[in-house]
Amino acid sequence: MSTPTKIMLDEREMPTRWYNLAPDLPVPPPPPLHPGTHQPAVAEDFAAIFPRALIAQEMSTERYIDIPGAVLDVYRLWRPSPLFRAHRLEKLLDTPARIYYKYEGVSPAGSHKPNTAVPQVWYNAQEGVRRLTTETGAGQWGSSLAFACAQFGLSCDIWQVAASYRAKPYRRTMMEIWGGRVYSSPSEITTFGRELLAANPDHPGSLGIAISEAVMEAAADPHARYTLGSVLNHVLLHQSIIGEETLLQLAKIGERPDVIVACTGGGSNFGGLTFPFLREKLAGRLNPVIRAVEPAACPSLTKGEYRYDFGDTAGLTPLMKMHTLGHRFIPEPIHAGGLRYHGMAPLVSHVYELGLIEAIAIPQSECFAGAVQFARSEGIVPAPEPSHAIAAAIREALACRESGESRVILTALCGHGHLDLAAYEKYLGGEMVDIELPESAIAEAMRSVPEVA
Amino acid sequence: MSTPTKIMLDEREMPTRWYNLAPDLPVPPPPPLHPGTHQPAVAEDFAAIFPRALIAQEMSTERYIDIPGAVLDVYRLWRPSPLFRAHRLEKLLDTPARIYYKYEGVSPAGSHKPNTAVPQVWYNAQEGVRRLTTETGAGQWGSSLAFACAQFGLSCDIWQVAASYRAKPYRRTMMEIWGGRVYSSPSEITTFGRELLAANPDHPGSLGIAISEAVMEAAADPHARYTLGSVLNHVLLHQSIIGEETLLQLAKIGERPDVIVACTGGGSNFGGLTFPFLREKLAGRLNPVIRAVEPAACPSLTKGEYRYDFGDTAGLTPLMKMHTLGHRFIPEPIHAGGLRYHGMAPLVSHVYELGLIEAIAIPQSECFAGAVQFARSEGIVPAPEPSHAIAAAIREALACRESGESRVILTALCGHGHLDLAAYEKYLGGEMVDIELPESAIAEAMRSVPEVA
Repeated sequence: MSTPTKIMLDEREMPTRWYNLAPDLPVPPPPPLHPGTHQPAVAEDFAAIFPRALIAQEMSTERYIDIPGAVLDVYRLWRPSPLFRAHRLEKLLDTPARIYYKYEGVSPAGSHKPNTAVPQVWYNAQEGVRRLTTETGAGQWGSSLAFACAQFGLSCDIWQVAASYRAKPYRRTMMEIWGGRVYSSPSEITTFGRELLAANPDHPGSLGIAISEAVMEAAADPHARYTLGSVLNHVLLHQSIIGEETLLQLAKIGERPDVIVACTGGGSNFGGLTFPFLREKLAGRLNPVIRAVEPAACPSLTKGEYRYDFGDTAGLTPLMKMHTLGHRFIPEPIHAGGLRYHGMAPLVSHVYELGLIEAIAIPQSECFAGAVQFARSEGIVPAPEPSHAIAAAIREALACRESGESRVILTALCGHGHLDLAAYEKYLGGEMVDIELPESAIAEAMRSVPEVA
Repeated sequence: MSTPTKIMLDEREMPTRWYNLAPDLPVPPPPPLHPGTHQPAVAEDFAAIFPRALIAQEMSTERYIDIPGAVLDVYRLWRPSPLFRAHRLEKLLDTPARIYYKYEGVSPAGSHKPNTAVPQVWYNAQEGVRRLTTETGAGQWGSSLAFACAQFGLSCDIWQVAASYRAKPYRRTMMEIWGGRVYSSPSEITTFGRELLAANPDHPGSLGIAISEAVMEAAADPHARYTLGSVLNHVLLHQSIIGEETLLQLAKIGERPDVIVACTGGGSNFGGLTFPFLREKLAGRLNPVIRAVEPAACPSLTKGEYRYDFGDTAGLTPLMKMHTLGHRFIPEPIHAGGLRYHGMAPLVSHVYELGLIEAIAIPQSECFAGAVQFARSEGIVPAPEPSHAIAAAIREALACRESGESRVILTALCGHGHLDLAAYEKYLGGEMVDIELPESAIAEAMRSVPEVA
């Protein structure tokens, strides 16, 4: 074992700026549109729900943006995160491939989400915002925002998808430990929520609905703003620290990835790991295949349409050009709650359209089988979301076993599964089923997507 | 902030030998006794339940023992573990003290327990053992052993205290992910378990009972051996890597601890952190106050008697000279399940008797209050066990605020609380009570302790 198990960076080696892919693309990404006029959105269109600094980042064409010192200070609680060589998984799979995984589960919330929660809270605090609202599904994002709000003394209101609120009380407790207030969505607090509850008191909720509620609340309170944990350009910007660190780590051991696989729901983990590598690829310095992995039950890239759609169910957000299953699409309750989103980050959608990345969809039972192999060899119990990336990495490693190639496979283990053990219980008990993609539900949801000239 | 947030060691700096305190003590620790003859136990007395290599370590008078290469390889999955400077907690407490915590929650099982699970499994595997048995309370030890067995291909049978088996299904799932088989204790599998269930079908179990069952099963199968996650000398030996790493980390930044506080149940976390520092103290190179922190509801050091007693409830183990509440004592169901043990490691008990360490007991509500302060400042949600250490560190830091002293406080955060969130839910909901120590229960349990001449 010439490569160490963990390739670490010292705190002083942590990148001090984020990377913005947009200016390096051969074709600029289509702009968001105002939902009423269908004209390109301007900064004021976002001012009721986002602080100026984040709107500027959302629209920035700067290649690099400095990370504020106060944000770096909080990042140091867990960053730089380790890059692992999966020696023991390689041995289990009997593959000549070399597998590396960047592990983001070392953050207090247990995933990559604090990478953007911390700067989002800090920029809001700088502009005098005293309260933040957001939505959360399984709870990874909500707990990350609650943690970040505790760091800077802001209050934090979280609308959690009702199905998860009921099924995952411990994530709620985690948010409350950090001082967050958590509401089941749809809630009685917003007009939209009340309408939905009137129609169905047991409404299971969805991320799109919870986004609508959190946006409405923020827009109604001058001291409050809204935060989103994925999809948007500024979120992917903040997550670029994952890929920037990984580049430094691989350089330390002289490795160059042949293939990069990462799971994608809204796209922030995928973009965070891969966009710095895409920069290197566009510049001709590296040449990895870059592949997004999505759940077979919510395949926005591989089965959705590329068109303008809303980010939320009520249709409050600007229209974004993205791969979408339709903003009224309610994904089946697969265990990877963080991948249950109808759309895909506009930047990820755009580079997919440009042919710069590939995409595949994998059913959850294959993902959990891979996650158990991973846990028994590498130790860490993965969250259901990155189990998709692990399953894809295992496919690659087994292909190398067939071909005899020693390819270098890089993936992101974007979180641990300590709060997802009920899903493993189902898998180990033989009760997990692969949910058939409801094609008719997509067709139905696509009818709600607005026509844009 | 001149000190970094995390003081890290490179894999190549990881200690390659464990430290055994026994030969450095001014008075040798009293030997274990055969339960029948009350004569000092010899190696053969342990041969039915432990492999020869571990028995040799249990009785060793060597100061240092080399860590096998295969064990170091597995340690590298998470070791060296980080030492944190608690900048943000210090700020919250407005204290001139400098607080450091060694964090063991980075291991796959989320605590310090894999430090000994891995070598125990490896030594057993070397001697041809194919199956290991053990007990577990909250599940930290059981999951660590299951993880270690998965690494070396042994099968793993775990008796989990019935109350925890029912209340904490997710820890059971974690053990099963790593391939462990988990039984509720008392179980129908052993004669002792059947007797207890016949008397009380809803028996809540205890660690002492689960130990008895696991020992009985191992003794009955020539291919099986028993493992214990705390108390014994060889367990504390393996945990010494915690303190050895910490010494290297503090040396890197030129700090010398004035006071070390660590929680103690069986004693392995406490001994692991503090014994290397005690070596330095005995040699006159450092002079820290060393203080054990135990739960007010199970205070073996501060309220137990120092005498020979059994390690298990059925009275199968050799007699050990230790602080004990009586081997028939069933502690109240506090949330720090890992601290609910009637006895204390003989080595920890011995150094306490020699006046080399201090001890205090803290009620759980103060511990949870400290843990929430810790989570909101440092991010990590602590397990209930180390919340005792955190509460003690906060007491010290507040004393420094009063006195104006800049003391250096060192503590061990021996695990995260991701699988203990139900306890936090109770605390945040105002439902946590401090359990009054049942003095009469201790007196009753002490009557079962054998008289030894």
